[in-house]
Amino acid sequence: MSEKRKKKLSIICLSGDFDKVLAAFTLGTGAAAVNHEVNIFFTFWGLNVLKKKKGRTFLGGSVLAKIFNFLMGGINNLPLSRLNFWGISPRLFNVMMRRSNVATLPELIQAAHELKVNLYACDMSMNILGMTIKDYIPEVKEVLGVAKFLEYSENGETVFI
Amino acid sequence: MSEKRKKKLSIICLSGDFDKVLAAFTLGTGAAAVNHEVNIFFTFWGLNVLKKKKGRTFLGGSVLAKIFNFLMGGINNLPLSRLNFWGISPRLFNVMMRRSNVATLPELIQAAHELKVNLYACDMSMNILGMTIKDYIPEVKEVLGVAKFLEYSENGETVFI
Amino acid sequence: MSEKRKKKLSIICLSGDFDKVLAAFTLGTGAAAVNHEVNIFFTFWGLNVLKKKKGRTFLGGSVLAKIFNFLMGGINNLPLSRLNFWGISPRLFNVMMRRSNVATLPELIQAAHELKVNLYACDMSMNILGMTIKDYIPEVKEVLGVAKFLEYSENGETVFI
Repeated sequence: MSEKRKKKLSIICLSGDFDKVLAAFTLGTGAAAVNHEVNIFFTFWGLNVLKKKKGRTFLGGSVLAKIFNFLMGGINNLPLSRLNFWGISPRLFNVMMRRSNVATLPELIQAAHELKVNLYACDMSMNILGMTIKDYIPEVKEVLGVAKFLEYSENGETVFI
Repeated sequence: MSEKRKKKLSIICLSGDFDKVLAAFTLGTGAAAVNHEVNIFFTFWGLNVLKKKKGRTFLGGSVLAKIFNFLMGGINNLPLSRLNFWGISPRLFNVMMRRSNVATLPELIQAAHELKVNLYACDMSMNILGMTIKDYIPEVKEVLGVAKFLEYSENGETVFI
Repeated sequence: MSEKRKKKLSIICLSGDFDKVLAAFTLGTGAAAVNHEVNIFFTFWGLNVLKKKKGRTFLGGSVLAKIFNFLMGGINNLPLSRLNFWGISPRLFNVMMRRSNVATLPELIQAAHELKVNLYACDMSMNILGMTIKDYIPEVKEVLGVAKFLEYSENGETVFI
């Protein structure tokens, strides 16, 4: 009997902070590893994780969008939510994580791909920041809005990070 | 017969950051638009969204409460959670949102009212900050605590923003 | 018939901000008081809440870990997420809370213990920061990872703070 439905975890990742993105991927890959269906919906700062360019670049249409995208940066510029020290802390954390044999963020993202975690990008934020799907890594499965996300996350657990 | 219960989304909005409040209302109105019952429970910084006075005012009983309320400000003073630049960024985002034909925060709040999203205020935070229901917009449905909120959010999905 | 299963609330507390930790314990104790099973899983900054030493101390193995632990501090050093003013604001909030007869953080933590709220510590964060269970208050029930947490939080509501 297939009575037991597959469990589902959906994460709305608005944050672009190093520690919170790390938490999103740790939770997401951990759940996928124990056979949950996992959706991560990136919005606003979270979209920095999905950018193809890992550093600061002038993406987007308008001058304003270009400036914000530059300042927001890519995955190599995620700040620690506190005690960031101009980006030194995330680097030091990477050192500590490697020493402790804990998966680093790039390794967790790789694991997410292998475990078939669904990565989605928020259409509204992309619209405001003048970005297109071409600016993102190819693993992004779909660009979507709230209604679609609610449909995909139905009958599962949802957390907002 | 009526087996399909109406879906429910409850949001605890502690944040008073421009980007996170925007996310709360985007998610809330989006869910209400696809016929979910939606509850938003504002607490601490989130209460700034509900203040009748949109700018900085000395609300509350004690001198301390008045100072904090002044510093916390109203809906026109919500800061971006990062890169706020003394309040310039939220204004620039409003410009970008209008250009992209994306609903701005006041429009989303208006939509929330029209879609009958339930707005609640946290009694404990109000107590600490010396505020009363009269300090808030009339659309606030009820002032309540954790027990009541848990009752209202039962059998639905809850996120914390 | 024991058809009615006990309700369950699980909180992932990554934040070490005074206001958010306060929210976690207010929500947690409030839910426990109306007979929910409550789990709080502390990770990253949240672990500062569990440290035995309430002030800043050089815990952990490596020099880097010691420095971070010192800077992160203990429960007496939790900053307000905004308007912290070098730690003055949390103290003023304590004053306002006592005046309003609202439970302060130490009282809420005490209540959590009495109401049998389950407190868990994240093994991965502890590993990175070089901490051991001996560095924490004895009320910590178990050190665990994502898989175990998902198991404990199953069939309940989970929020991320």
